[in-house]
Amino acid sequence: MKKAIILLSGGLDSATTLAIAKNSKFETYALSFSYGQRHEIELESAKKIARQLQAKEHKIAKIDLRIFGNSALTSEIEVPKDRDISDFKKIPVTYVPARNTIFLSYALAYAEVVGAFDIFIGVNAIDYSGYPDCRPEFIEAFAKLANLATAVGVENHGRFKIHTPLLKMSKEEIINKGVELGVDYSQTHSCYDPIVKENQIISCGNCDSCKLRLDGFKAAKIKDPLKYL
Amino acid sequence: MKKAIILLSGGLDSATTLAIAKNSKFETYALSFSYGQRHEIELESAKKIARQLQAKEHKIAKIDLRIFGNSALTSEIEVPKDRDISDFKKIPVTYVPARNTIFLSYALAYAEVVGAFDIFIGVNAIDYSGYPDCRPEFIEAFAKLANLATAVGVENHGRFKIHTPLLKMSKEEIINKGVELGVDYSQTHSCYDPIVKENQIISCGNCDSCKLRLDGFKAAKIKDPLKYL
Repeated sequence: MKKAIILLSGGLDSATTLAIAKNSKFETYALSFSYGQRHEIELESAKKIARQLQAKEHKIAKIDLRIFGNSALTSEIEVPKDRDISDFKKIPVTYVPARNTIFLSYALAYAEVVGAFDIFIGVNAIDYSGYPDCRPEFIEAFAKLANLATAVGVENHGRFKIHTPLLKMSKEEIINKGVELGVDYSQTHSCYDPIVKENQIISCGNCDSCKLRLDGFKAAKIKDPLKYL
Repeated sequence: MKKAIILLSGGLDSATTLAIAKNSKFETYALSFSYGQRHEIELESAKKIARQLQAKEHKIAKIDLRIFGNSALTSEIEVPKDRDISDFKKIPVTYVPARNTIFLSYALAYAEVVGAFDIFIGVNAIDYSGYPDCRPEFIEAFAKLANLATAVGVENHGRFKIHTPLLKMSKEEIINKGVELGVDYSQTHSCYDPIVKENQIISCGNCDSCKLRLDGFKAAKIKDPLKYL
């Protein structure tokens, strides 16, 4: 069985990506990050999803992106609410500098160690927040780098592949795909600014991430199982 | 004054690189990593060097590469001793998977936050240990990635530059350059497997890193100020 690394935040997109990798007959190694994110609660979702979708292994790398700050997700900058989805092509303050580059670099290290040549990341170029490191040209550049950066890359030139199965899917299509593959979306978490009340996680419903999610479920005519304010 | 990020391990090469960046009239932001390395003592050298060479800022990012292991520098695998320098083109067990990719990714995040477009890294393609992520083609691929990965990269396409001033220098030339620029090599640390005895750091003299360093000082006809076993 071929092995694959899957970047797993615990959100809707990465959970679906893990299910797609599994369905493509990869033995899956999930990788999450505790990076000082405001919504660290997403890691609890990542653990549940990794278990539910029978990842062979799930590692959580502890890395500190707060030392650089400068993002609403890793500093005291406020998470913007009620933005118009048509504005999402502008890069928002929730952008974390170089985050996907850092995440993919770790995935590459993990891949080299377990002997995988396939890395899955749930980036999406349709319903997304305008982050530069979610675009296809970024992913292609990283794949080139991966094949030059590593000992195994040098010996097997061109074998590293970055899979982006969601790249051209709408949120509606992603949700439909996930439902088809048995993803339990009640275990996922998307909100950038959740509150915990009486042991329940309540999503704000108004940050970019909640808005994209809610719109997707609405379009798919499926009820989002999460609790909202 | 233009700003630059300098990857600073505390070794001979990175100290010289910092001096070169300073001499090129950059305002310098040094970045080191506590990554679970066996020779974490090198960070004390990094601090001293950053102070001596008047870095504007010095950050130490705490990241855990031990979760992947698989290197003599981040696990219990033994550091090889007394290797023949002519063997150094083979990738040794001290290779840390994807390390420079991870380090440069952080440097990129730091650059974006402080408004720098210049990143210095002291890789060397002459007297080196055969690491794939020290080669010019790797560095070029990373520069391309940097310009696609970031918000500022998108707005200023092509402005990110990865400087590798030592790339084609021998260790002898590096040491001569450093001496000319006032680097105090007694503050640097190179050994992969040092011991601490009566508050003194003693280098092994036999790991790849010590051997390259000692050969360089010998060729430069300068006495290495460090203590050896």
